[in-house]
Amino acid sequence: MNRKTIDRIRKFTSDRDWEQFHTPSNLAKSISIEAGELLECFQWSDTDFDKEHVKEELADVLVYCQNMLDELGLDADEIINEKMDKNEAKYPVEKAKGSAAKYDKL
Amino acid sequence: MNRKTIDRIRKFTSDRDWEQFHTPSNLAKSISIEAGELLECFQWSDTDFDKEHVKEELADVLVYCQNMLDELGLDADEIINEKMDKNEAKYPVEKAKGSAAKYDKL
Amino acid sequence: MNRKTIDRIRKFTSDRDWEQFHTPSNLAKSISIEAGELLECFQWSDTDFDKEHVKEELADVLVYCQNMLDELGLDADEIINEKMDKNEAKYPVEKAKGSAAKYDKL
Amino acid sequence: MNRKTIDRIRKFTSDRDWEQFHTPSNLAKSISIEAGELLECFQWSDTDFDKEHVKEELADVLVYCQNMLDELGLDADEIINEKMDKNEAKYPVEKAKGSAAKYDKL
Repeated sequence: MNRKTIDRIRKFTSDRDWEQFHTPSNLAKSISIEAGELLECFQWSDTDFDKEHVKEELADVLVYCQNMLDELGLDADEIINEKMDKNEAKYPVEKAKGSAAKYDKL
Repeated sequence: MNRKTIDRIRKFTSDRDWEQFHTPSNLAKSISIEAGELLECFQWSDTDFDKEHVKEELADVLVYCQNMLDELGLDADEIINEKMDKNEAKYPVEKAKGSAAKYDKL
Repeated sequence: MNRKTIDRIRKFTSDRDWEQFHTPSNLAKSISIEAGELLECFQWSDTDFDKEHVKEELADVLVYCQNMLDELGLDADEIINEKMDKNEAKYPVEKAKGSAAKYDKL
Repeated sequence: MNRKTIDRIRKFTSDRDWEQFHTPSNLAKSISIEAGELLECFQWSDTDFDKEHVKEELADVLVYCQNMLDELGLDADEIINEKMDKNEAKYPVEKAKGSAAKYDKL
């Protein structure tokens, strides 16, 4: 997400005085709710889905994620890179290659 | 998310031959699963939460969102801006200001 | 669920003084969290799953549902039959037979 | 849930030839989706919610749980009692009383 998009999301929230609703807990609920709507695109079929609908629901998840980053004063790149350090250690290429097993089953 | 972070996520996936598991449906499930783990940080309290744990779970949601963008050939800024066009129309400032009501109840 | 099972769930809660945590909102979060854990059994495959694990996670969802029924003073059969009245009206057999379409697309 | 309610749910499904859609994976997705809709009742407030709406969404979760029990040939009381055996062992009254901590933090 680039700076202009982030600024647009922040302005959308502040123009509406919605920071008051954006507690971390409410945003965690919102991310789950929107993730459920995204999942609904695939409820009865894994392959026959409406891509335009998927785009909207995925965007909703991302917007609430940005709201949570803002509320907690976090930077997406920073927390993702910290997590990728852990993922790379938990899933070494030689063990994880081609396997969908969880790290504790590798 | 900057280009370097996106490239790191893509390399992590391709190094492990995991594209085969990254169907849109499996990624929608994964986003929901990780959103549930993020929500678990707030299961019994809205205010008493472990910020380090929140950072990890939020990062997991974002990584799977990037995987889905990649799988579907989408760009985060593009789909978010398209959705923000709709959100701004659905929630006009003068009606939505200070209200948590859904657009069809405004 | 029979009376004895319901009583066991209630006694489990009251023995631990956990009613204080069982607000409707916390239980809604808990149902979502456990539904995510159930979904995790099918994260990377629709057909290759651990049935014993599925049983445990489905049981967790059902226990939190019973907690919510108790917290709100509701009866499972009553609310389900009320909802089935609506479902039967929304999905008439002649229109819905063999179709996975949502009622507004039938 | 009593036998008559269970039979009504089964008849609803079979009258519409919907068993074909009720794979365990699709039902796990459905439970998560409905759990998200239930959670939406509490998205912006823990205390100000529409009880009639909650009843409908909770009923939807329970109906899909019954569909999954049916699909997998399981009995609710049996799997719940097996899980309660584990819960009682994981959360001994003397340790868990009045605490919302997870079992591995007790």
